[in-house]
Amino acid sequence: MIYKLTIEYFGTEFVGWQKQNNGLSVQEVVENAIKSLTKQDVILYAAGRTDSGVHALAQVAHFELPDLYDPHKLVASLNYFIRPHKVSILSCEIAKDDFHARFSAKKRYYKYIILNRFSSSVIYENRVWHVVSKLDIENIKEASKYFVGKHDFSSFRAKECQANSPVKTLDKIDIIQEGDFIIFNFSAQSFLHHMVRNIMGTLKEVGDGKIMPHTIKEIIDAKDRSKAGVTAPPNGLYFLKVDY
Amino acid sequence: MIYKLTIEYFGTEFVGWQKQNNGLSVQEVVENAIKSLTKQDVILYAAGRTDSGVHALAQVAHFELPDLYDPHKLVASLNYFIRPHKVSILSCEIAKDDFHARFSAKKRYYKYIILNRFSSSVIYENRVWHVVSKLDIENIKEASKYFVGKHDFSSFRAKECQANSPVKTLDKIDIIQEGDFIIFNFSAQSFLHHMVRNIMGTLKEVGDGKIMPHTIKEIIDAKDRSKAGVTAPPNGLYFLKVDY
Repeated sequence: MIYKLTIEYFGTEFVGWQKQNNGLSVQEVVENAIKSLTKQDVILYAAGRTDSGVHALAQVAHFELPDLYDPHKLVASLNYFIRPHKVSILSCEIAKDDFHARFSAKKRYYKYIILNRFSSSVIYENRVWHVVSKLDIENIKEASKYFVGKHDFSSFRAKECQANSPVKTLDKIDIIQEGDFIIFNFSAQSFLHHMVRNIMGTLKEVGDGKIMPHTIKEIIDAKDRSKAGVTAPPNGLYFLKVDY
Repeated sequence: MIYKLTIEYFGTEFVGWQKQNNGLSVQEVVENAIKSLTKQDVILYAAGRTDSGVHALAQVAHFELPDLYDPHKLVASLNYFIRPHKVSILSCEIAKDDFHARFSAKKRYYKYIILNRFSSSVIYENRVWHVVSKLDIENIKEASKYFVGKHDFSSFRAKECQANSPVKTLDKIDIIQEGDFIIFNFSAQSFLHHMVRNIMGTLKEVGDGKIMPHTIKEIIDAKDRSKAGVTAPPNGLYFLKVDY
């Protein structure tokens, strides 16, 4: 049986999705909970392997088990074993035999939140990128349009990125301002490693007036990571959902 | 000089706004920071004295000092002394001599957030009321209309309420659904103690089908606290802002 889980987590508490030797990962926490419940070792595959500090509102992951468990009961039982870690299983369903959380994904959605004001936030601590300098949102919106579509995103790709090709198709970047919050919504079939954070770091520099909106085209064409802006911090980034 | 502060705080960490013997209050934290900076004892008056667990996105409070401080520098200095407590001073201005954060307030705004799904949230922990039973939002919206306007709110008033009169004019309750979140926006010149939480507890019972929407009118007319629903938990409640 293939079990498909939808998972929320608070990324600040973890070294990232993927199991690592240097700290606790979301994968490890959920795999351990499955083992506590079923006494079986499983491997959990996620739609998006988020970095340390990156949150997920509805990550999707799958694992295989020979036995049949009631999916609804599994949610409550796994959450019982996961506590007190900052992971919440939102739902579980039995998927088709050929379902793979990563390879079956048709579209992935990310959200990035900037808090643009002088003082930091205690309620949204670790949940936003706090930017003090007043950003020019109209310039950011204009700049964002250059990213949409099919491009070689080498200028926005982490060195460690394992993707076969740097060419990706970004479906959209929607930008909404709500008070001091600026919320960016991204969607694409797939993203390069650090792609959203590197685009965000670059858009922030556009907002600061350090990069002009039309320069984005040149930065993309350069296919050179050093031409783009810094990598934005992980704490403003949320893995939102996946379409299959 | 009258200094007007706008303050964000994470209510879970405090016994409430007001100074008390049984734990740390927001008032105490900010008064202590003012003392550390100015070496003067001040009394801080807030627009709304929130209960333990209730958050504020933009509470307003004032205090008096004989000396002139640069308001912008005061923000950074107070935040320095407040750390690591979960309070953030957002802004400071010199107010008119007759300004009083509580008595000059023309309108107060509160927000209440319900998370309506099976599993609890780790990202919004302590920041929403987690309700598992599926709520009927149309019935809640219908019921909410009975509260708007000028009423004797005795059925929704805490025993400890110190207001002179139970008659208040509720300007609006706007209800928005965003995924599993139900967001309620309240505004009125002033509220009774626990009024928003008692209305929310009652609306939740409407959503559960235990109270019919049209029964709200009878509950209001009864002027009897025991006829209304429970007091909703504080963690879903946010003091939003004040108009002067």
